[in-house]
Amino acid sequence: MLIKNPRFVLTPDGVLENKNIVIRDNLIESLGGSDKRGEVIDASNHAVLPGLVNMHTHASMNLLRGVADDMDFWDAWPDIVWPLEEKLDGEKCYWGALHAMVEMIKTGTTCFNDMYFFMDRVAEAADEIGIRGYLGHGMLDRGDGGSLEKEVNETERVVRVLKNDFSDRIKPTVAPHSPGTCSKELLLESKSISEKEDIPLHMHIVETEREVDEVTEERGEHPIEYLKSIGLLDDRFIGAHCVHLGRKHMKILAESRASVVHNPCSNMKLTSGVSPVTEMIEEGVNVTLGTDSVVSNNSLDVFEEAKFASLLQKVHHSDPTTVPASGAMKLPWENSGRALGEKMGAIKEGYLADLILVDLDDISMSPSHNLVSNLVYSKPSVDTSLVDGEIVLREGRLTKMDEEMIKDKAEEIAEELVSG
Amino acid sequence: MLIKNPRFVLTPDGVLENKNIVIRDNLIESLGGSDKRGEVIDASNHAVLPGLVNMHTHASMNLLRGVADDMDFWDAWPDIVWPLEEKLDGEKCYWGALHAMVEMIKTGTTCFNDMYFFMDRVAEAADEIGIRGYLGHGMLDRGDGGSLEKEVNETERVVRVLKNDFSDRIKPTVAPHSPGTCSKELLLESKSISEKEDIPLHMHIVETEREVDEVTEERGEHPIEYLKSIGLLDDRFIGAHCVHLGRKHMKILAESRASVVHNPCSNMKLTSGVSPVTEMIEEGVNVTLGTDSVVSNNSLDVFEEAKFASLLQKVHHSDPTTVPASGAMKLPWENSGRALGEKMGAIKEGYLADLILVDLDDISMSPSHNLVSNLVYSKPSVDTSLVDGEIVLREGRLTKMDEEMIKDKAEEIAEELVSG
Repeated sequence: MLIKNPRFVLTPDGVLENKNIVIRDNLIESLGGSDKRGEVIDASNHAVLPGLVNMHTHASMNLLRGVADDMDFWDAWPDIVWPLEEKLDGEKCYWGALHAMVEMIKTGTTCFNDMYFFMDRVAEAADEIGIRGYLGHGMLDRGDGGSLEKEVNETERVVRVLKNDFSDRIKPTVAPHSPGTCSKELLLESKSISEKEDIPLHMHIVETEREVDEVTEERGEHPIEYLKSIGLLDDRFIGAHCVHLGRKHMKILAESRASVVHNPCSNMKLTSGVSPVTEMIEEGVNVTLGTDSVVSNNSLDVFEEAKFASLLQKVHHSDPTTVPASGAMKLPWENSGRALGEKMGAIKEGYLADLILVDLDDISMSPSHNLVSNLVYSKPSVDTSLVDGEIVLREGRLTKMDEEMIKDKAEEIAEELVSG
Repeated sequence: MLIKNPRFVLTPDGVLENKNIVIRDNLIESLGGSDKRGEVIDASNHAVLPGLVNMHTHASMNLLRGVADDMDFWDAWPDIVWPLEEKLDGEKCYWGALHAMVEMIKTGTTCFNDMYFFMDRVAEAADEIGIRGYLGHGMLDRGDGGSLEKEVNETERVVRVLKNDFSDRIKPTVAPHSPGTCSKELLLESKSISEKEDIPLHMHIVETEREVDEVTEERGEHPIEYLKSIGLLDDRFIGAHCVHLGRKHMKILAESRASVVHNPCSNMKLTSGVSPVTEMIEEGVNVTLGTDSVVSNNSLDVFEEAKFASLLQKVHHSDPTTVPASGAMKLPWENSGRALGEKMGAIKEGYLADLILVDLDDISMSPSHNLVSNLVYSKPSVDTSLVDGEIVLREGRLTKMDEEMIKDKAEEIAEELVSG
């Protein structure tokens, strides 16, 4: 396949002008040159960028957008969100996840890292619509959670099903909920699955002060020290939120080559706090970006999230130079590739052909004095998207499923769920 | 004219379902009922909302989007922005302003309050494209600014031209730059014009700590006390930014019935600080919302600005209930109507027919558990817009001017300006 005549191609070495991209199978074969064998995408007056990676989602929660806004977490979740989640099943999660994937694909996300329930159905949805998904069954065995054995069995089932029944775009993860909601045994079991299967371990860490206080009281050390001491931290570890930590904890994360996911909108809306992203980057921690679910955001637009990430750090540190546009875009690009251990997040020979085309005719992208700054601080509009070398969005329309049908079906389920 | 069958109409009394809107001339005549005389807009599966008011802009600066990002103001403005502004003329400002108006109209703004130069040309642009504009010549007579006499003459000329040569959608304001960059005489002259002409007085106030320190040192009191003591504050006063002030200054603003404009993206990006919006609302100050220019934002999307306003207050105060979605939307709606002394910002009989239609088929607006929350926290897409009872945007296309032509011409000027 050939992407022909793009005005700009954003590569790790800078912005190239009018450079064709040749794609063979699911990989970027070369920059420049031509290929007469396959399909041709005309990219005139478009910028070709690596697809965005949304590193922390609960996609099926799209059914619940807006049900718990402007409330304290401890008022909203126990009384509203958790009872609604009790009513979910595989079918509902399938449609909710598809709904989220439409939203993600249309805003430039080509890969997402999800933690929720009925993950074989989420995998089915992702495989059908064509997005790349890292999917883990959210496990918890304390409080109202399930039992360790049940949770581990479900994770093992999901890992097996995802490895066997779907395309290579679908990858399993192991996803213990958090240091406070999982027993030490469950965390150790998670680590053992992550090692044995060589898959990411995705969990929430130090999202709230309350979590830090509770774990510290029980374990006698800060949650990050606790995770280190039980051996959980390595380069397969992905910690979402990561708000409440000090320099010494950052050094632990950096030395372990663990990754974290910054979720600025969720952290601001739920008042979890301001994550020390500037400091983590200084300490060499691999920071990525996520939207969290639409109950706590309420959008899945990673470009918007990058603007929040940059502007929040700037005002928090009184430093307009921190997390500049180019730095903000490392989070959903190269840092995400590193976190997932994949050649993704860069336009480079041999890298996955997960690519998006941004329309430079859009008034928000004009004038083009600074492409990367326009992407982060203005409002890019994505009209074409490729995952694994396959077109999943063309001129704003999904290619593999019908958006209208997904929306209608998900809305029907959502209304029944919330009113019922 | 009839807006027929909207799924939702957002009124001050709540969300109405399937209620037609009858428009006669430039006003909302009635809610419900029917009108067979004029044009019919089919609003099926749309929400009809009051048009957004962007209360602080420098529209012509759209030519300069992205030229000064991730830098300190005192590095970027003197070395980059001001020299570029020196090269502007009426023709350039006309095209830059048109470019901004395209962006504003397409994101739901029907009225903007602008301060810049060559304002008769900005008025010409606004009148041609059909947006409502409050326009003031930015005056300063200290530092490198012009002379008092020259500035006042230009304001008087602009006021006269705007009152005589354009439609009623175009209104003049008087716009002294700030308490620090204008002499006391210029401020008093401004006030006198504002009173005599009965037009708003629009200026920057207490945007940065530096400004507060400098004015306080020179005048012996905080800038807001200074403005009060020289008699500037009344219900025609509109103070943009308003970041650095205490409770007693808020009380002064509230008692004077002055309005302020919150610009969260600009304040975060330039690290001006976090405006005490929660406290100002508590004290009864009339708070509105603005984007500032695309050099300091870099978007003109007021819905996005409302999300920033809400989330920034929440995390700053550790209070998820502050500035809820419905409260955030008061800023660009009813509070803006109050600031400008116009019946605007609400769908109500007798109010100006400045209306926008949001597409509820858009995946970001789905499901519709909470319309207002979707507007603020997700990403609404506006496809139709009326100003003064006239359609200026229909199904995403401008009706009165050609978007492509504006974009091309403005880009050409912008490139020459920045590279030349």
